[in-house]
Amino acid sequence: MHRITILGAGAMGSALTTPLIQNGHEVRLWGTEFDSELLTELRANKPHPRLGIHLAPGLQFYDPPDIEAALTDADVVILAITSDGVVSILQRAVPYLRPGQALLMVSKGFGYDATQHIRLLPTLLTAALPPHLRESCPIVAIGGPCKANEVAAGWPTATVYGSENQQALTLCRALLQTENYRLCLTDDVVGLEVAAALKNTYAIALGICIGLEEASKHPWHNLKSAIFTQAIVEMARIAQALGGRSETVTGLAGAGDLEVTATSGRNRVLGERLGRGESIATALATMRRLQQTVEGVAAARYAVELAAQLVNAGQLVTADYPLLSAIQAILSGEAHLVETLSRAALPA
Amino acid sequence: MHRITILGAGAMGSALTTPLIQNGHEVRLWGTEFDSELLTELRANKPHPRLGIHLAPGLQFYDPPDIEAALTDADVVILAITSDGVVSILQRAVPYLRPGQALLMVSKGFGYDATQHIRLLPTLLTAALPPHLRESCPIVAIGGPCKANEVAAGWPTATVYGSENQQALTLCRALLQTENYRLCLTDDVVGLEVAAALKNTYAIALGICIGLEEASKHPWHNLKSAIFTQAIVEMARIAQALGGRSETVTGLAGAGDLEVTATSGRNRVLGERLGRGESIATALATMRRLQQTVEGVAAARYAVELAAQLVNAGQLVTADYPLLSAIQAILSGEAHLVETLSRAALPA
Repeated sequence: MHRITILGAGAMGSALTTPLIQNGHEVRLWGTEFDSELLTELRANKPHPRLGIHLAPGLQFYDPPDIEAALTDADVVILAITSDGVVSILQRAVPYLRPGQALLMVSKGFGYDATQHIRLLPTLLTAALPPHLRESCPIVAIGGPCKANEVAAGWPTATVYGSENQQALTLCRALLQTENYRLCLTDDVVGLEVAAALKNTYAIALGICIGLEEASKHPWHNLKSAIFTQAIVEMARIAQALGGRSETVTGLAGAGDLEVTATSGRNRVLGERLGRGESIATALATMRRLQQTVEGVAAARYAVELAAQLVNAGQLVTADYPLLSAIQAILSGEAHLVETLSRAALPA
Repeated sequence: MHRITILGAGAMGSALTTPLIQNGHEVRLWGTEFDSELLTELRANKPHPRLGIHLAPGLQFYDPPDIEAALTDADVVILAITSDGVVSILQRAVPYLRPGQALLMVSKGFGYDATQHIRLLPTLLTAALPPHLRESCPIVAIGGPCKANEVAAGWPTATVYGSENQQALTLCRALLQTENYRLCLTDDVVGLEVAAALKNTYAIALGICIGLEEASKHPWHNLKSAIFTQAIVEMARIAQALGGRSETVTGLAGAGDLEVTATSGRNRVLGERLGRGESIATALATMRRLQQTVEGVAAARYAVELAAQLVNAGQLVTADYPLLSAIQAILSGEAHLVETLSRAALPA
């Protein structure tokens, strides 16, 4: 039995309590300032508001000021914070971390380092650790394909865990794997994270095809499948330019995650709105009002800038990512959806 | 301008008249004995019954006895016959073929050769040609991802054409490519054909997840994405064992075609019926009554036998294709859908 502290009581952090409790671990769920309502519901034995189900009994809940108590003597810490908040939460946790603890991270995305270069989150997290922890705390990235509500409910799921530390991966499997929650392990953190972050952006384009169908009353399935494939090709190129492997992207972490992300979720919904004819401004305003953050929008901005950095460094050419550029153009107001996407996704 | 003869007036053969007429070619559409009603409608300027749209004007129609007239002086012949009928139609055409004609084939699947070994269709077609044609008529396989009705309507489409004859591929692009119908060319006929045939079988499993969702009122998206990825992995292994390339399967011809096949079509529908709780006997009987051939069912039988041949030859092990075996078990009456698919698609 291990002691696991999850920082962040949102959907994915809370979902992971299901396999952990099932495996008999002591699980502590710490909420950020944004999670107060969630914690109130959970303490009252109500369903998790974002998952729609009751979490397993036996969890311990911690409020924002109690981060030290939540982390004391934890064997493993899981960072389940949105990508724009994860570094600052890690900085709050640092005084209470100890050497050797594995740090698991469900956050996906990009950020700027101190030199204003775009980096993947594992690099930024490592940089945020003081030297004595940086050497000894292995970071494990948790990728897709994985809807949190299904993990919470215990439905069959395969998910990719990535780390350069093989021992940490083996520990993750021992701690988290259940009959229905299965782990694929990889040392290709870059491939995993590129796919995890970028699939949200590409899923917007797939959502557009679904929206076009609703509006035009005829399907755009051929275009959608061309976009699907081009997305995988481009994610693989970007991953390779950063030192990752193509096979990671064509497998569960990329193709699989893109498939599930295009099936449901907010990125698809944004795309559908655009495809039905809403302007990007209206669609984003509506989703903001509904408090639905569309991760693929920020990821597109970061990815286009990252790709430009890679072009400058001679590791990519702009012809390597026409679909990413097309999506960014659409998110910036380009209204010729079919023309823009066709030109980018169909063979020249 | 070229003279193109299409043998078979079904959905895909008829759909290809759209890019061909758009490019200004003389196009002859010959119908088999099964196509008489289709030809009657088309001659009366009615919409194509299976495509739901009017074909482009200027087509010439030929009845079954007129195969010689249909083929005389054709530059290119397109075989658009179901996989179980294509060899016999080719045999009927052989007396009227001439050396150097390119033979394009939209049929997908497997068949037995003279020694009762399972072969891909291009091999069987080559064997059905007399020696003087075998040497001189290049065979081009047309793969996916491609819904015929969208090609017929002129919506954006990317499709893979495969041949070992580079000149024939270049000719295909010159003849068929339009602004919205784009060709990807490959010399990996084996990879293309394995994916084209097997995606139908794997799409049944993806359809099952959709049916499960309808029956259980909760999604099985994580399982579906695990199946999607495992399908690509297994198709790539089978293609490689036959001498094809993994990249063909992870690209447009495999991942792309599986995506579109799981989005719509009869294979998905059969899977949905099973997922909702229908027995395989009931589901197949219903679809037979609706005259809906489910290509993935025959393909599964062939593929399992082919895989066993490859295992005997030391080119595969049974652990390379657990999902194919699981689908065949389900098509043979195995009723524990979730258990059978989870065990096959999730990591061990």
